[in-house]
Amino acid sequence: MHATILNCSLKGSESPSNSQLLADVVIEALEKRGVECTTYRIADMSVPPGVATDLGEGDDWPLVHERLLASEIVVIATPTWVGHPSSLAQRVLERMDAMISETDDAGRPVAYNRVAGVVVTGNEDGAHHVISEINGGLVDIGFTIPPQSWTYWNRGPGPGPSYSDTGEGHDWSHSTGRAMAANLVGVAAALEARPLSAPPS
Amino acid sequence: MHATILNCSLKGSESPSNSQLLADVVIEALEKRGVECTTYRIADMSVPPGVATDLGEGDDWPLVHERLLASEIVVIATPTWVGHPSSLAQRVLERMDAMISETDDAGRPVAYNRVAGVVVTGNEDGAHHVISEINGGLVDIGFTIPPQSWTYWNRGPGPGPSYSDTGEGHDWSHSTGRAMAANLVGVAAALEARPLSAPPS
Amino acid sequence: MHATILNCSLKGSESPSNSQLLADVVIEALEKRGVECTTYRIADMSVPPGVATDLGEGDDWPLVHERLLASEIVVIATPTWVGHPSSLAQRVLERMDAMISETDDAGRPVAYNRVAGVVVTGNEDGAHHVISEINGGLVDIGFTIPPQSWTYWNRGPGPGPSYSDTGEGHDWSHSTGRAMAANLVGVAAALEARPLSAPPS
Amino acid sequence: MHATILNCSLKGSESPSNSQLLADVVIEALEKRGVECTTYRIADMSVPPGVATDLGEGDDWPLVHERLLASEIVVIATPTWVGHPSSLAQRVLERMDAMISETDDAGRPVAYNRVAGVVVTGNEDGAHHVISEINGGLVDIGFTIPPQSWTYWNRGPGPGPSYSDTGEGHDWSHSTGRAMAANLVGVAAALEARPLSAPPS
Repeated sequence: MHATILNCSLKGSESPSNSQLLADVVIEALEKRGVECTTYRIADMSVPPGVATDLGEGDDWPLVHERLLASEIVVIATPTWVGHPSSLAQRVLERMDAMISETDDAGRPVAYNRVAGVVVTGNEDGAHHVISEINGGLVDIGFTIPPQSWTYWNRGPGPGPSYSDTGEGHDWSHSTGRAMAANLVGVAAALEARPLSAPPS
Repeated sequence: MHATILNCSLKGSESPSNSQLLADVVIEALEKRGVECTTYRIADMSVPPGVATDLGEGDDWPLVHERLLASEIVVIATPTWVGHPSSLAQRVLERMDAMISETDDAGRPVAYNRVAGVVVTGNEDGAHHVISEINGGLVDIGFTIPPQSWTYWNRGPGPGPSYSDTGEGHDWSHSTGRAMAANLVGVAAALEARPLSAPPS
Repeated sequence: MHATILNCSLKGSESPSNSQLLADVVIEALEKRGVECTTYRIADMSVPPGVATDLGEGDDWPLVHERLLASEIVVIATPTWVGHPSSLAQRVLERMDAMISETDDAGRPVAYNRVAGVVVTGNEDGAHHVISEINGGLVDIGFTIPPQSWTYWNRGPGPGPSYSDTGEGHDWSHSTGRAMAANLVGVAAALEARPLSAPPS
Repeated sequence: MHATILNCSLKGSESPSNSQLLADVVIEALEKRGVECTTYRIADMSVPPGVATDLGEGDDWPLVHERLLASEIVVIATPTWVGHPSSLAQRVLERMDAMISETDDAGRPVAYNRVAGVVVTGNEDGAHHVISEINGGLVDIGFTIPPQSWTYWNRGPGPGPSYSDTGEGHDWSHSTGRAMAANLVGVAAALEARPLSAPPS
C-alpha cells in the first residue's frame, strides 16, 4: 500500500516544519503497517495557481498527481494561519479539483476507493476547523474519510509556543496520529477488498 | 442493512419540510438497494440540550441513540439558517458527542464501521459549508464518510424560492442524491465485510 | 449605553457556566466604561426553534428581542461543541434572523448602528471558528463587528481541563476580553455620533 | 477616502475575472461616494508565501502593504474553490497577519479604524462561508466589519454558468454591492470622526 503526504508548510525545507514533525509520527505508524510513504514539500516545488492537472512547462503538480493516483492514502499536513489551512493546502485542493472529472476505466472518479487524513499544527487554536475544511474538499473530490483520521497539536489560548518548542501535549497528538494511521490503512484495505463501483448517473 | 435519517428541520411535521422532500429521494434510492430506513423528525420530539446519551425522564434521544446503534448508515438532513446547519442539527451532533466514549465489546467507538451522509436544502447558499460542518463532527465521533455522500439544493444568489416552490435544479440534486445512496451502501458493505479494529492507544 | 449578553451554555443556571465566567470579565470591563449590562441564560428560558420574532404563547424570545433593540452592544457567549457554536447559540442566531427584514423609522435594518462581540470557552480547540461562524450571521443581520471584539479560552491539544479547573491562560483571555470591551464601546460610540443611513436599494 | 481592492482570482489579467466584474460594481459605487480606488490583481504579482510584511527581493507585497496603510477601506474579491476562499485570498490574509503586531504612533494595531468588505463569485455555492472565513481573519488583524459589507454571485445547485455567462441574479448582486459600498464608507467615516484608541493591555 502507498501513501502520499503533502506538507503544506509555508516554509521550504531550508527551515524546519512543525507540520512535518507531527506528520512523521503518522508516517512511522503507516510504515510499520507496511505502507510505503512519499512526502512532497509543496513550498519547495513550483505549484502555480489553477484548477487543471497540468498547467504546462515548469509545473511540478503533474508529478504529484501521478503519485496520488498510485496511492491508496493521501495525508495533507498543514499549519494553521489566521485559523485556516495554509494557502498551500488550499492550493493543492484547487489542483486536486480537476480530479473530480477524471475517471478510471470503470467510469469512477479517480479518487474513489482512496482514503485521506489530515495533520495540523499551530501555536494557538483552529485545528478542527482546518480538518473540516480540508475534508470538505476531499469528500467532494471523491476520497473516503475514515473515522478520526486526523491528528493535531496546538496550545491555546492565545499565541504561545510552537510544537517543536515544548513537549506538552505531544503524547496525545502522537497517540491520535497512530490511531489515524490504523484507520487510514483499515478503511483503505476494506475498499481494496470491496471497491466502490461508479455511481449511478 | 439499516439507515437512520435525522430530519433537523426547525418545523414539526405539521408543516412540510423541504429537507424531507430531498431526503426522500435518498431514502427511495437506499430502499431500492435493500436498506430499511427509519426517519426521525427531531422537531416533533423532545431532545433537550446536553452531551449525554440519556438526560432522564422526557428525553426522546435514547430511542434515537438505540436506533443509530442498529444502523450501518446515518443521514442528517437539515435546512440552512444563517449559512449554518440548523440548531436541531447541532443539537443532534451534541447528543451524539457522547458516542465518542462509548465502545463496543471489541473496544471500538460505537460509530466505527458506520457511515454517514448529509442532505441540505436552503433558499440561497451555504450547502457545502453545512456539509463540512456536519461531517467534521461525525468524523470525530467515529463515522466514516464515503465519497460525495451528500446532496443539496439551493438557488442563489440572494433570497429566492424554496425547494418545493420550483423544479429548477431538482434533476441535479436527485441524481446526486442517488449517487450518495450508492456510495453510502458501498462503503458500509466494505466495512461490514472487513471491519475496522479498535485503534491502538 | 446598554449591552445584552446572551449566554448560550447548554446548561441552565443550576449548573456553573464557564462561558459565563469569562463573559463576566467582559461585563465588568463594559460596566467600568459606563455600560449597563443585561445577561440572559438561554437554557433557562423557553426559546423554541423558528425564524420569527414571536412564536406565540410561551415564547420568551420577544423579551430578548425587545432588549436587543434597546442595546447598542450584543455579546454572544458560547461553549464549543464538536468544534461549533452551541445549539443554543445557533438558536439565537435563527431567532435574530427575523431582524434582517425589520426596519426602523429611517428604513434601516434594526441591527444597524449596533455592534457585536463573541466570548468562547471550550476544553480543546475551535474558538476562532466559533467566532467566525457567529460573526458571519451577525454581519448578515446588520451588526457591525469591531476589531478584535472577542475573547476565548481553551487548552488543546485534545481533551483537557475546563476553564474553571485551572488558572492557565486566564491572564491572556481576560486581557483580550478587556480590549474587546474597549473596542465594542469605541465603535458603538462612533456609530452613535455618526450613524449609518439606510442602504440604497 | 481611499480603498484598496485585492482581486484574488487564480488567473492573471490575461484572462477575464468574474470576481473583478462584480468588484467593479462596488468600485463604481465607492467612486460615486468620492472614494479613490486602487485594485491589485494578486495573480499578476509576486506574492510569495510567508507571514512577514517584507520577504525581500522580488516580493511585491510591501507595495500592497503600503497602499493598505494609506486606505480607510479594503475589499477582498475572490472566487470560490472547493467551497473556500481562493489560495490567493488565503495568501493575502497570511501576508496581512504581520499587521497584527504592527502599531501606529498611538500604539494601535495599524488596521484599527479601517474597514473591510468581501466580494465573492462562484458557479455553485459557498459565498457566505467564504465571507465568514475572510472576515474572521480581518477581525483578528484589526479591521472593523460594517453591516452587510459584502456581495456575491453564484448559481446553485451543482455546477452551472459563471457570472459572466448569464444575467440571472445580477440585479440582486449589484444592489447588494451598492449597499456594501454605502456601509463601508459610512462606518469608515464614523471611525474617522471618532477613532478607536489603543486597546488596554
